[in-house]
Amino acid sequence: MTPRLALVPGEPAGIGPELCVHLAQRARDAALVAVADPDTLLAAAATLGLPLTLRDADACTGPGELAILALPQATATVPGHPDPRNAHAVVAALRRAGEGCLRGEFHGMVTGPVHKATINASGIAYTGTTELLAEQAGCEVVMMLANPGLRVALATTHLPLRQVPDAITREGLIRTLHVLHDALTRDFGIAQPRIAVLGLNPHAGENGVLGREEIETIAPALDALRAQGMHLLGPLPADTAFLPRKLADVDAVLAMYHDQGLPVLKHSGFEQAVNVTLGLPYPRVAVDHGTALDLAGQGVADPSSLIAAATLCADLARRRHGLAS
Amino acid sequence: MTPRLALVPGEPAGIGPELCVHLAQRARDAALVAVADPDTLLAAAATLGLPLTLRDADACTGPGELAILALPQATATVPGHPDPRNAHAVVAALRRAGEGCLRGEFHGMVTGPVHKATINASGIAYTGTTELLAEQAGCEVVMMLANPGLRVALATTHLPLRQVPDAITREGLIRTLHVLHDALTRDFGIAQPRIAVLGLNPHAGENGVLGREEIETIAPALDALRAQGMHLLGPLPADTAFLPRKLADVDAVLAMYHDQGLPVLKHSGFEQAVNVTLGLPYPRVAVDHGTALDLAGQGVADPSSLIAAATLCADLARRRHGLAS
Repeated sequence: MTPRLALVPGEPAGIGPELCVHLAQRARDAALVAVADPDTLLAAAATLGLPLTLRDADACTGPGELAILALPQATATVPGHPDPRNAHAVVAALRRAGEGCLRGEFHGMVTGPVHKATINASGIAYTGTTELLAEQAGCEVVMMLANPGLRVALATTHLPLRQVPDAITREGLIRTLHVLHDALTRDFGIAQPRIAVLGLNPHAGENGVLGREEIETIAPALDALRAQGMHLLGPLPADTAFLPRKLADVDAVLAMYHDQGLPVLKHSGFEQAVNVTLGLPYPRVAVDHGTALDLAGQGVADPSSLIAAATLCADLARRRHGLAS
Repeated sequence: MTPRLALVPGEPAGIGPELCVHLAQRARDAALVAVADPDTLLAAAATLGLPLTLRDADACTGPGELAILALPQATATVPGHPDPRNAHAVVAALRRAGEGCLRGEFHGMVTGPVHKATINASGIAYTGTTELLAEQAGCEVVMMLANPGLRVALATTHLPLRQVPDAITREGLIRTLHVLHDALTRDFGIAQPRIAVLGLNPHAGENGVLGREEIETIAPALDALRAQGMHLLGPLPADTAFLPRKLADVDAVLAMYHDQGLPVLKHSGFEQAVNVTLGLPYPRVAVDHGTALDLAGQGVADPSSLIAAATLCADLARRRHGLAS
């Protein structure tokens, strides 16, 4: 059976609609249902000079086609110029796709980039799509970035650096590692995942000389989970944990904070990097780049990340729902 | 004129002496003077089955030879087993090499890895060779790691993460950037260095939403230095600053802290990575790895980093002292 994925372009004035048109040109092993404004997608196709036929949401589609669940915008898209009047439609598409995933209408969700400031300017309180979907589903989630050679999950995400040390708790790490471990096992099909857990401090604290969080918080959390059978390395010094020969031995790295883990991931394969939300009742994969307003409407945006996101989401959905590949 | 470099092996029971023997086998464009215990070097050569003739400190040497300034140890080296009784000789070698550099006997210094815990166990207060040399010279120094494709300098080095935000000050950044800029210009021969300066917080604070240090501390420091003519980018989000196409446009990256900058550097070229101390009255380049006690005496240690350190140090010394290359 073919997985059925909701495809949400994100900010209409960014590059998301173009990327969806590029994705629509390809042969597919998943049914793609765009949850979007039809006119925006058709305009993006016209700009790119690529064919696009929008069909009924139940239709099977092939190259040059997309099934659509129409959520019309308040006003027409002007590429490069986000309009807060359209923010309601952007958020409604994410919510509608999430509802569909929760009730089994879709097997997973693929999302393009949104423009946080524009949504907030519209009066809708919004901190991020990951947070919106977690709240809708009532789940604790973990953000993981992945490229073809590396998976990096984060113990904390968008926090000022000053708040990071106190946000790392034994209980929080245990919950995060359960979500990560379960996702690697169930969705990624890794029977005995090996996870490298970084320390918080340089040199993982150097036996307490450079900070005690490793001794007091991180190591006890890892010991508790090892007693449950998890295969965990660490707490490891972050600077040497990403040596290629060390990465070869692990399935994922858990970084304690954003800038400890993501520079290497983006350096080593940005174009195909994707953002996976772990812990939801369905797989959700997003692009790992922004709206690129300066490129929107020019037909030069690289669709690699959205293509990688759709491919990975189909793969995760097949495993999660036991669909034959 | 050939630069004359002091070569200090570091911890005798680690891989340092073996690496020096490997380095000694090579043709050289600098005079190398080992400041070390002769017996330890000869024993390492015997273990490796490589020739080594130690000659007078004033001698010109070629492959298979080293000039030596002998600083005998208290007791014989046992590879893999550091002895605190030899720590005095280790520290004395570093100090003697530093004195020689300060008075013009040497044009620069190349150092192998030391074992901090063993030195401290001997009763000598020691936080690091960089700090020791800075204190000896009475200078403010900056630590920069470099591999053939990337240079990363650090605004703070070995601090618990919790102490990092308050250690970043406007005045400190200005001093650090002056040291970095001057070194890139004078020692690295880059006429108009372009330096990417990272933010402290994720997304460089996202206009104050994720922290205000960029607005209150970093940006004003950069503005003051731009007014003096420095070419500075930033404060930049750390996660995207290391994209290969962005690195192509800069000569060095200034990271705010250890684990923000070093994971990418080590991931992208650990074997040839070196540690350069900027701000001393002479160039000092160290290996970017530890003593590898588990490998010592087995003849399997990779000398790439020490070879890269000696090559770079000779290069920097030639520029600093106006020696023809």
